[in-house]
Amino acid sequence: MPSPKYLEIQNLLLQRIKNGDYQEGQLIPKEVDLAEQLNVSRPTVRHAIRNLVQGGYLERRKKRGTIVTQTKIKQQFTHVIESYNTEIQNNGLVAKTQVLNFSTEKASDEVAEALTIKPNTEVYKLVRLRSADNKPVVFVVTYLPIAQLPDLQKIDFTHHSLYSELAKAGLEITHVSRKIEVHPATEEEAQLLETDIKAPIFYFHTIGFTKDHRALEYSIASYRGDLNYFMVEIDKH
Amino acid sequence: MPSPKYLEIQNLLLQRIKNGDYQEGQLIPKEVDLAEQLNVSRPTVRHAIRNLVQGGYLERRKKRGTIVTQTKIKQQFTHVIESYNTEIQNNGLVAKTQVLNFSTEKASDEVAEALTIKPNTEVYKLVRLRSADNKPVVFVVTYLPIAQLPDLQKIDFTHHSLYSELAKAGLEITHVSRKIEVHPATEEEAQLLETDIKAPIFYFHTIGFTKDHRALEYSIASYRGDLNYFMVEIDKH
Repeated sequence: MPSPKYLEIQNLLLQRIKNGDYQEGQLIPKEVDLAEQLNVSRPTVRHAIRNLVQGGYLERRKKRGTIVTQTKIKQQFTHVIESYNTEIQNNGLVAKTQVLNFSTEKASDEVAEALTIKPNTEVYKLVRLRSADNKPVVFVVTYLPIAQLPDLQKIDFTHHSLYSELAKAGLEITHVSRKIEVHPATEEEAQLLETDIKAPIFYFHTIGFTKDHRALEYSIASYRGDLNYFMVEIDKH
Repeated sequence: MPSPKYLEIQNLLLQRIKNGDYQEGQLIPKEVDLAEQLNVSRPTVRHAIRNLVQGGYLERRKKRGTIVTQTKIKQQFTHVIESYNTEIQNNGLVAKTQVLNFSTEKASDEVAEALTIKPNTEVYKLVRLRSADNKPVVFVVTYLPIAQLPDLQKIDFTHHSLYSELAKAGLEITHVSRKIEVHPATEEEAQLLETDIKAPIFYFHTIGFTKDHRALEYSIASYRGDLNYFMVEIDKH
């Protein structure tokens, strides 16, 4: 199935943003000029631009035109519960997951505390490196209690999302508690995420809960600071 | 008025955490020993410890005792709308604000866009450096539209909170949209926040809205990454 025309144009414009043809803070060409240049209709160009505005890459400025605001990936993990793949696709990028390790081990004090199980209970340890358009975005280590998920190791997390697999098992994650830190990249992070040692890294600790308030997931994620930003929306109660 | 005994003990324990007498990941002495050592009752010690657990500094571990988990300041700005002073006080620390500049200027495109006003409209620019126990925590530049706040410059923001002053003027901030980035400290940030150049900095862009959806505040804040962490709680809708 060929992808819709606007998506083709969207990816092409995104490519130009990513490789610096269109620079941060600079205007992109007018709709009418882009339509002519790319040999597509104006509505198609408009559709592509609208998506990139929603993705946070472009911003319309009154009277001036459309400028490149942001070359980072907009992440909503601080605001909604959504799978990594959905987040990345919302940015018009191709998400990929590499499973570096999927084994079982005895829960450390830290893991046991997070999952409210006894230390030394057997847990899964799932280690994934996730990318967008082949650039590494986040390195994440996830611990899950075996007792509640006896068949998990049959699943190939290269192609399946953890959250949808949990939901399928009747254990949907409906509440997430997340601690956000930053730190300078360690050697391991720098190597895996293809960035410099000591570059700023977003460092998340997450506990995911099911509807009945059971802690089912404990994840430690390292996001490249130069590639990602996060949004929060807060209402006064 | 003398402060309650538990608060005295709480501050003393916090001091010991801060100056490294009690180290991250290490057990603190037992309640009974602390009570004897500090010559107070066990309930007083328990009260102090409970507050430090809530503040995120300590964590109870079954059978082992209470360990130091965190020496950073827990910030809830990613989760609730609260004044800086309240946040810092919840951590058992003394909050202080230094007003570095409070002037008016013409709105740049960026500021105008955020506040949905015309570029070059006059706005206030309020620049504050905020500390906890005399350590600089965050450097924040805030823009506010003059038209809606004619008397703002009479207020001394060394001693008054912006959010409570806005509420007093009938313009309470009830929704906040916040973008979270990290970057390596610039020279100016390093100097003001007394940290190293290129140390990881939390970089927040915030737009604060009133109940009738008017953008009233645009702030750009730089938090020391080594001193602060942020919590989010997310529910599935």
